[in-house]
Amino acid sequence: MNFCSDNVAGAAPEILAALVAAAQGTAPSYGADPVTARLHRRLETLFGTALAAFPVATGTAANALALAALVPPYGAVFCHEGAHINTDECGAPEAMTGGAKLIALPGAHGKLDPATLEAVLRRGHGGGVHHVQPALVSLTQGTEAGTMYQPDEIAAMSAIAHHHGLSVHMDGARFANAVAALGIDAAAASWRVGVDVLSLGATKNGALAAEVVIFFKPEQAHDFGFRRKRAGHLVSKQRFLSSQLDAYFTDDLWLRLAGHANAMAMRLARGLMTIPGAVLINPVEINEIFVALPEPVIAGLLEAGFDFYRWEGSVVRLVTAFNTDPASVDALVVTARRLADRG
Amino acid sequence: MNFCSDNVAGAAPEILAALVAAAQGTAPSYGADPVTARLHRRLETLFGTALAAFPVATGTAANALALAALVPPYGAVFCHEGAHINTDECGAPEAMTGGAKLIALPGAHGKLDPATLEAVLRRGHGGGVHHVQPALVSLTQGTEAGTMYQPDEIAAMSAIAHHHGLSVHMDGARFANAVAALGIDAAAASWRVGVDVLSLGATKNGALAAEVVIFFKPEQAHDFGFRRKRAGHLVSKQRFLSSQLDAYFTDDLWLRLAGHANAMAMRLARGLMTIPGAVLINPVEINEIFVALPEPVIAGLLEAGFDFYRWEGSVVRLVTAFNTDPASVDALVVTARRLADRG
Amino acid sequence: MNFCSDNVAGAAPEILAALVAAAQGTAPSYGADPVTARLHRRLETLFGTALAAFPVATGTAANALALAALVPPYGAVFCHEGAHINTDECGAPEAMTGGAKLIALPGAHGKLDPATLEAVLRRGHGGGVHHVQPALVSLTQGTEAGTMYQPDEIAAMSAIAHHHGLSVHMDGARFANAVAALGIDAAAASWRVGVDVLSLGATKNGALAAEVVIFFKPEQAHDFGFRRKRAGHLVSKQRFLSSQLDAYFTDDLWLRLAGHANAMAMRLARGLMTIPGAVLINPVEINEIFVALPEPVIAGLLEAGFDFYRWEGSVVRLVTAFNTDPASVDALVVTARRLADRG
Amino acid sequence: MNFCSDNVAGAAPEILAALVAAAQGTAPSYGADPVTARLHRRLETLFGTALAAFPVATGTAANALALAALVPPYGAVFCHEGAHINTDECGAPEAMTGGAKLIALPGAHGKLDPATLEAVLRRGHGGGVHHVQPALVSLTQGTEAGTMYQPDEIAAMSAIAHHHGLSVHMDGARFANAVAALGIDAAAASWRVGVDVLSLGATKNGALAAEVVIFFKPEQAHDFGFRRKRAGHLVSKQRFLSSQLDAYFTDDLWLRLAGHANAMAMRLARGLMTIPGAVLINPVEINEIFVALPEPVIAGLLEAGFDFYRWEGSVVRLVTAFNTDPASVDALVVTARRLADRG
Repeated sequence: MNFCSDNVAGAAPEILAALVAAAQGTAPSYGADPVTARLHRRLETLFGTALAAFPVATGTAANALALAALVPPYGAVFCHEGAHINTDECGAPEAMTGGAKLIALPGAHGKLDPATLEAVLRRGHGGGVHHVQPALVSLTQGTEAGTMYQPDEIAAMSAIAHHHGLSVHMDGARFANAVAALGIDAAAASWRVGVDVLSLGATKNGALAAEVVIFFKPEQAHDFGFRRKRAGHLVSKQRFLSSQLDAYFTDDLWLRLAGHANAMAMRLARGLMTIPGAVLINPVEINEIFVALPEPVIAGLLEAGFDFYRWEGSVVRLVTAFNTDPASVDALVVTARRLADRG
Repeated sequence: MNFCSDNVAGAAPEILAALVAAAQGTAPSYGADPVTARLHRRLETLFGTALAAFPVATGTAANALALAALVPPYGAVFCHEGAHINTDECGAPEAMTGGAKLIALPGAHGKLDPATLEAVLRRGHGGGVHHVQPALVSLTQGTEAGTMYQPDEIAAMSAIAHHHGLSVHMDGARFANAVAALGIDAAAASWRVGVDVLSLGATKNGALAAEVVIFFKPEQAHDFGFRRKRAGHLVSKQRFLSSQLDAYFTDDLWLRLAGHANAMAMRLARGLMTIPGAVLINPVEINEIFVALPEPVIAGLLEAGFDFYRWEGSVVRLVTAFNTDPASVDALVVTARRLADRG
Repeated sequence: MNFCSDNVAGAAPEILAALVAAAQGTAPSYGADPVTARLHRRLETLFGTALAAFPVATGTAANALALAALVPPYGAVFCHEGAHINTDECGAPEAMTGGAKLIALPGAHGKLDPATLEAVLRRGHGGGVHHVQPALVSLTQGTEAGTMYQPDEIAAMSAIAHHHGLSVHMDGARFANAVAALGIDAAAASWRVGVDVLSLGATKNGALAAEVVIFFKPEQAHDFGFRRKRAGHLVSKQRFLSSQLDAYFTDDLWLRLAGHANAMAMRLARGLMTIPGAVLINPVEINEIFVALPEPVIAGLLEAGFDFYRWEGSVVRLVTAFNTDPASVDALVVTARRLADRG
Repeated sequence: MNFCSDNVAGAAPEILAALVAAAQGTAPSYGADPVTARLHRRLETLFGTALAAFPVATGTAANALALAALVPPYGAVFCHEGAHINTDECGAPEAMTGGAKLIALPGAHGKLDPATLEAVLRRGHGGGVHHVQPALVSLTQGTEAGTMYQPDEIAAMSAIAHHHGLSVHMDGARFANAVAALGIDAAAASWRVGVDVLSLGATKNGALAAEVVIFFKPEQAHDFGFRRKRAGHLVSKQRFLSSQLDAYFTDDLWLRLAGHANAMAMRLARGLMTIPGAVLINPVEINEIFVALPEPVIAGLLEAGFDFYRWEGSVVRLVTAFNTDPASVDALVVTARRLADRG
């Protein structure tokens, strides 16, 4: 009954089984193993394009290294003010880029919008040496607010970014949740709408610890290998990362896991909407719910053993995962309703 | 029959089992889980002292982050010229310290010696702002050359370092191999001989990907958490790192695995010494053999399917692991002898 | 008739004379010269306290090095969104701190206000490793908007900063202009209202190239010498920096020069207020004027040979300097009025 | 009678006069002034080629920024173990490159030699991600040991560097002394023998504080402006740097000043060779003398008021400058001889 985060869940059985299988026998190290090769082929098939892919163990590493590959030390990165790279990585992007600057932009429900982006880029800097140089736009899909971009929204912002000479990065820690919710294919959710580099996460969706940085313009990855090694993110027995990812993308496992998490969030949101005084703060589009609840309901739920984060004031965040039990969802709703009725 | 490195081996069954067990159920993220707590207690018991311990996924991360905690950007790190931090980490220590300088010192068989260290530190820099400031000595135990330090050698160098106001770091990627070979306890091999911070590796000795940075003066770790996060090395589902390490240190597994690897190296070295023309380049003290072999023997072994690295000229490196099969050792020796006889 | 910036002016005769005098004979290098010693005594007398002072050649260096001394790589710096460190230094603070994060805050007329600062610091971060750690508040005096803080405003913000464990930096590129306008002494404008470190500029006010970083808690400067050298900002013939500063602070030259610049700005502002359609955007408190003018007036002035910056839309920035000729001020006003009348 | 360094001398009258002249009137800032434009034309004429030139205030800045333009964070720089960048800049190259690695190579009399360079580059690294990538060779002309390279020596090393894909940097803090001694033109001493980027110093040879970074392949300077600004090395009133350099290169002033310093060193060396027990440690080719002297001679000279550095043991360093008085040279020799005779 832990709704704190999707990273409190364990591992999906299929992924765990793949990891155990990969542990047998010897294999070349540092990515020269057959599982990594198979993963690469699988990703190219999945995305329908040639790409360069680099497994790493954490989402922060995936994001910060992806930015470092495309942003000079004197560069500027544009992102939503609530983006993970801006608020939750203790400055990893600044560290790995050598001190680039994140320009935090506002936007409703955790989303950047084309008008805001266009306005800030148009103001420009004329190449003047006094200013950091616009280099990259980073979009989070699904967002930290539990929402997601429609493909045409991404396409619009990519077009603006590219028009101004900037690259487009997607923080896809919850890419699976967004793709599952959108019901489109991986290509339509990424490079076909202008994404240049994607930090694609599996950890929040059933892996133990596995993310993969994907460059859709492989030449942009020309020095990524050095940067990854230098950051301590080249794992020697890389098959243990690759096997998780290989299983993740096999037989649509990633979408099935994400689809379940999303469905549980919808079920929970629908239930909570029946609670007097409950107000959804953001549309529930993936696996996160931000909801204002009466204080006695919050306190009562916590006392009853339901775990979740107080976000701000009376707003709480509830996150579902690949293995969330519908019964626990229903139990939370029932308990909340009881608490509200008593209030 | 792969003797390329100890990182081509898979995972020890006990460690894999612990990982699978840890995958069940939910657990708090970012190190607040019970497995991480248990690991911490186990390490304090093993080392017989209070300590601060931080699991990470790679040895390069462990080393570079440990240095960053104790060395300012304008600091100097003294190490052997063949140290992993100096030659095999693509500049990770420089990256994570903000540009500190590694001063590479010579020394026979991969080992620094007290006289060399004393001489270089005595020359000093008088605190002058023109020079990087001596900050830390890094020792590798067991060394990259397949040798190891005796405890009194480490104690002597720690005393010199501390006398000059420097910290002492130990790169323990093969700490288990050295401790097993020395037959002493973990404390006697580390803080009791002056080590301040230890990068203790499990990956080369049966883990999938797990290292732990241990500070024996916990106050020196005061900002390590920020540095680890900022480097992308805080794993969200940390139980998956901690469970590997917890199993590794349970019932002396780490020493049994390392003892086996060491024994296989001795067996192999003894066998190779019977080959005409074979010359050991370094004493074989842990699980690595550097041996000069006649060219036809090298070529023949490779052709016969034995994998290993050509080091330089006619010298090859052979590495054994926790799961090296005695039969494959014997097969290599028999094949080499046959090739030598034929030559 | 150049009102673009105070850095288009040349050098004050007294400063130039001091420089020429300092060029005679030999002197120890790197700050061990007698002029630097005299400057140090003069600054301690001026500020009425023990201090550590480090001359450098540029304001960007002074700011970025001052921050680097007090902010860790994982630290956060709070400043006004229009602060020079945030907008005009091409990321120098990020570069020199090793990637710290600037948190840009809004505020009317280029000024931070206590309520905004208190609110953002109260929200806090609980020391969590996911977030950069609040480390320093930077205030610009006089501001980039041509305004200035009253001493009690600075005292209020310093109190908030110190209460939350943060240091206080003052970007004093136009410190002289503010002190001259306030009519208080140097101490009352700095450490007595809580400033820990001051980047005190002379370049914009009659020097050729000279700024000085002053630590009012000298122990906070313990490694500044290394950082300055490492950044290439230790000038070998330091007497050439020190002599400029020594002359600058002799016989209140700095205040006389700044007072003239301020007076010229007031004269210009008063004149412009007589122009139909002219609107002051900010109060004119030091030597910068931000004024909206009718487009024909702007175009006509530029055509007539008056130089200044278009800021945004119909707003222009006019800056006066230590040597601005009253006749050129009056000429500008007369020309503008004529243009307006014709419009 | 100060022979400590060429940076204890003041300023040459011609340079000081140019600076004073430049102080008159207003001028655009940040390098858009006419003096900077004239300097650029003068440099192109002097070197007989198109180039990009960037004035800065210190030699450390010139070197570190030049390297940062051509070396990635994961790059390796090869230099002599006694090079200024390696020993006397407190890690500035590491800081500005984002943590690149300096590989210090041995060589007689402060000089790298082609065989050593070829050997270390041939060993190579195969592009492997585990190693920093060879990026640049830095040569110091004249050297820190008071010697200089012949043009064909530089050409040989440049050819090796370029063959291996590396750039060639010249630390020319004493470029004038070497060019004057060689009696060749500036082009023959730089780009015609393969130098890509030159840190050309004036400070040690009569300027107050002025160096210029010159790129002979201007496209390699594409982001230098950002890097210079970001490092705090863009001086706002740049005419004060440019005017020094402009005067320096007018009417061969730079060569006349350096020629005098060289001649004084020769005179001093010749005199010292008549002292019993004096042994030159390096050939005296520019304006520095490294000589072993009997201890009573050293002590007596210091007591008599001659200033110089004790280098190591009985070896002292004596440096002459653009304004060294022949009488003071002779006085030192006479005193030394008297002390030696008494001994």
